[in-house]
Amino acid sequence: MEIIAEHRTFEGRQLRFEHQSATLACRMQGALYLPPQAEHGPVPVLYWLSGLTCTDENFIHKAGAQRYAAEHGLAIVCPDTSPRGDDVPDDPEGAWDFGLGAGFYVNATQAPWQQHYQMYDYVDRELPALVAANFPVQAERCAIAGHSMGGHGALVLALRNPGRFASVSAFAPIVAPTQCPWGEKAFSHYLGPERDSWAQYDSCALIRAGAPQLPMLVDQGEADNFLEPQLKTSLLEAACADRGFKATIRRQPGYDHSYYFIASFIGEHIAFHAEALASA
Amino acid sequence: MEIIAEHRTFEGRQLRFEHQSATLACRMQGALYLPPQAEHGPVPVLYWLSGLTCTDENFIHKAGAQRYAAEHGLAIVCPDTSPRGDDVPDDPEGAWDFGLGAGFYVNATQAPWQQHYQMYDYVDRELPALVAANFPVQAERCAIAGHSMGGHGALVLALRNPGRFASVSAFAPIVAPTQCPWGEKAFSHYLGPERDSWAQYDSCALIRAGAPQLPMLVDQGEADNFLEPQLKTSLLEAACADRGFKATIRRQPGYDHSYYFIASFIGEHIAFHAEALASA
Repeated sequence: MEIIAEHRTFEGRQLRFEHQSATLACRMQGALYLPPQAEHGPVPVLYWLSGLTCTDENFIHKAGAQRYAAEHGLAIVCPDTSPRGDDVPDDPEGAWDFGLGAGFYVNATQAPWQQHYQMYDYVDRELPALVAANFPVQAERCAIAGHSMGGHGALVLALRNPGRFASVSAFAPIVAPTQCPWGEKAFSHYLGPERDSWAQYDSCALIRAGAPQLPMLVDQGEADNFLEPQLKTSLLEAACADRGFKATIRRQPGYDHSYYFIASFIGEHIAFHAEALASA
Repeated sequence: MEIIAEHRTFEGRQLRFEHQSATLACRMQGALYLPPQAEHGPVPVLYWLSGLTCTDENFIHKAGAQRYAAEHGLAIVCPDTSPRGDDVPDDPEGAWDFGLGAGFYVNATQAPWQQHYQMYDYVDRELPALVAANFPVQAERCAIAGHSMGGHGALVLALRNPGRFASVSAFAPIVAPTQCPWGEKAFSHYLGPERDSWAQYDSCALIRAGAPQLPMLVDQGEADNFLEPQLKTSLLEAACADRGFKATIRRQPGYDHSYYFIASFIGEHIAFHAEALASA
């Protein structure tokens, strides 16, 4: 593990690191914010999963989250959104919604994707172990959040790992990838045509299958162009209502899909996670 | 004047606009944040001038300033850093410290620069009039701030226009462009070899020549690689001390020249300007 950049911000350290990933069979970069509290001992961790086309850098540049992380004493870990490198296959037509920058946080089972596209295991296992081994974090006190494709990833990781995350939150998540064009395209390539194998990566399906409760906060902009065709927040609302799963799902008038939306509410999300982590 | 983008953020409006500039003889883009208070009446304005290589977008993406502007009810106007367009001359070798992205907020007098490179007048006159004519701002209640080359621009505009700005602040400003390589290169091309004509664009020279007092706040990172060769904060400290000019000039340990530094202290700068504007 190599530190490739460091900047002081809000009295803490914004780092970028690079390492050889065994899970993804390629070199990966990622970002980590260590708040000033980490100078005095290990701190809890929030994982942030980004959306389509993003790298580990979008969130650390644009969300303004470091201020709140410093206030609450949370580290924030941001992985990249797919495996990377010259020998990692991409969408044959270079589409932005599949392949590089679009790993969808699944373990691919189909050729030629399965050699590198193992983002679920990377985020679930390899990255947390790496962070715990190298930085002053309390590996067992963690929460997870994300945006769009990364909101999907955060919800799925939290719902499939009961007791692991103190809380989960998402901005404009793809709540039912088995029922929208982005998800259907990605899953049919990464997981193959057998739809039964898709449900383990669908938040609504996981809730309907009885995933246990944890604190959940979702914000969705009402001016988001992807809301109806791709994100389908109403499916999450229905799944939660049908199963008695308690979640705070907020519609935010006028907000779109951009980081301007995330920046506006990331402070509330971090406060939400900090509260859950305080009793974890 | 055409609105080319709009995003809701912190309950306000982040706009980008485009217009034909008579001063610069080209089409220009710029950014404007209108806080929620602007829905109910005109608000005071903070001008933000960016540094070398930037456009009007760096600040609105990376500084996290909208939160504080919304808290204090300030609009923020961000011009681009040079004239733009295919017929605008650039550094013959494409250097990043001169030409496009590097207008230095001066009125060029030398060929081939003088036709377009009139950034001082653009920021001083044309842009404020345009903003006042099109948006709910109190044109006469304004303050100015900037970063690096833009910190230089902000200080110079404030020092040359007594009574115009309620306050001025800067991050890592080029305080004495007549005495550093960046400034010497730019001024010799834009203004010609006669150094007497340069002093009107040098903050230290303006203070030594008796520029009247206004509230001034400067932050400088001590880990900034440009501090010694280009920024030379000590020259500003000396000029202020020698002339009895009261300024708050802070050295911030560990901080570099990046937007991570700006983000860490922009809240304090905006609060500083809001306080000055409240009594303006």
